[in-house]
Amino acid sequence: MTIDDRLRDRGLVLPEPAAPLASYVPFVRAGDLLHVSGQISRDASGGVWRGTLGGDLSIEEGARAAESCALQLLSQVRAACGGDWDRLLRVVKLTGFVASAPGFVDQPKVVNGASDLFVALLDEAGRHARSAIGVSALPLGAAVEVEGVFLLR
Amino acid sequence: MTIDDRLRDRGLVLPEPAAPLASYVPFVRAGDLLHVSGQISRDASGGVWRGTLGGDLSIEEGARAAESCALQLLSQVRAACGGDWDRLLRVVKLTGFVASAPGFVDQPKVVNGASDLFVALLDEAGRHARSAIGVSALPLGAAVEVEGVFLLR
Amino acid sequence: MTIDDRLRDRGLVLPEPAAPLASYVPFVRAGDLLHVSGQISRDASGGVWRGTLGGDLSIEEGARAAESCALQLLSQVRAACGGDWDRLLRVVKLTGFVASAPGFVDQPKVVNGASDLFVALLDEAGRHARSAIGVSALPLGAAVEVEGVFLLR
Repeated sequence: MTIDDRLRDRGLVLPEPAAPLASYVPFVRAGDLLHVSGQISRDASGGVWRGTLGGDLSIEEGARAAESCALQLLSQVRAACGGDWDRLLRVVKLTGFVASAPGFVDQPKVVNGASDLFVALLDEAGRHARSAIGVSALPLGAAVEVEGVFLLR
Repeated sequence: MTIDDRLRDRGLVLPEPAAPLASYVPFVRAGDLLHVSGQISRDASGGVWRGTLGGDLSIEEGARAAESCALQLLSQVRAACGGDWDRLLRVVKLTGFVASAPGFVDQPKVVNGASDLFVALLDEAGRHARSAIGVSALPLGAAVEVEGVFLLR
Repeated sequence: MTIDDRLRDRGLVLPEPAAPLASYVPFVRAGDLLHVSGQISRDASGGVWRGTLGGDLSIEEGARAAESCALQLLSQVRAACGGDWDRLLRVVKLTGFVASAPGFVDQPKVVNGASDLFVALLDEAGRHARSAIGVSALPLGAAVEVEGVFLLR
């Protein structure tokens, strides 16, 4: 099964690679490492998925918001690979930032929404190093932002 | 036009590379990648540029604070290159942390102060992947902290 | 003196490499760079070292919490090296996230607890680029989280 098959089986559609919010680019390749800009959570219609964990969003909603970041990262990776998934060798590192009300400490469960998707789609190649961090505020009021480093051939 | 010409045209002076605040070094090169330590915002006299976005600082002030971080990053890169700008191939990734009051969500506009400078000075080589994050507090009360990864030859 | 000797002289014991909290792995090697997942502060019995700087923890306690993160990072590096310290060439970059009450700005003094240990154990090879960031909340209520990039042979 290809990544595209697996996405289809899960009823997921890769979004169009989002334009950056500012004077930067979605990704830069340096040697075999692809650095992808932080992707903020978005809903199915492409609007910013706003909210705060420990505030107006449940952990389950947060996890789905994180999954939306993973889909956007993957969309950028596909663009960087010219559409050829065989060039993606490994998800190296994800950093997940979670907009968190004071006292909210379940950031790992939220960022799992991103991590689980990469493993579901890529098996071993999807397993990555990770940090999960709770922060006071994210761009445009997003609930989650995830950036990534990927190994390409 | 060289980077030094462009700095001069903009009336900007690279600061002396700041000494680290602690037991670490300003940059480490590993292969062709240069990792530069987080640089906190500083005013023209070298004092810490303090404040909070959404609090006592405007977006414009925040963007200039971020620009001061970019100048310091560039000063470290110049040191790492032994003063030879030709060795700087690409700005790979910036991560901008913005001291943010609750509800402040314009971190991208603030970090643009750093991103825009790199593009103004380096054209295509200055275009980078980026994340912008709002945090509760930065070292010494700084308004902005930016770290960077650079590709050298 | 080897790293193991130095640990013993300081009365420090490397913890067992902690299992990740979620669907990710403790480290990924890409080329010569080892990315190690964020390690949260833990006490001597392995429990999460909870608290907030500028709240219920002193700077000294925070620095020891950061040191516990460094020990865990080192434990993961040892596992990645198959127990052969000679394969560890350099600590490249640390990012230290410090759970911070509003107004706490001494994150560098806290993260020094991690930085100082690497230099004490590894001399020049332990000197690294670094960022220190204050955040509102960390996984499981941890006081400190530190992630790292290491150069291996």
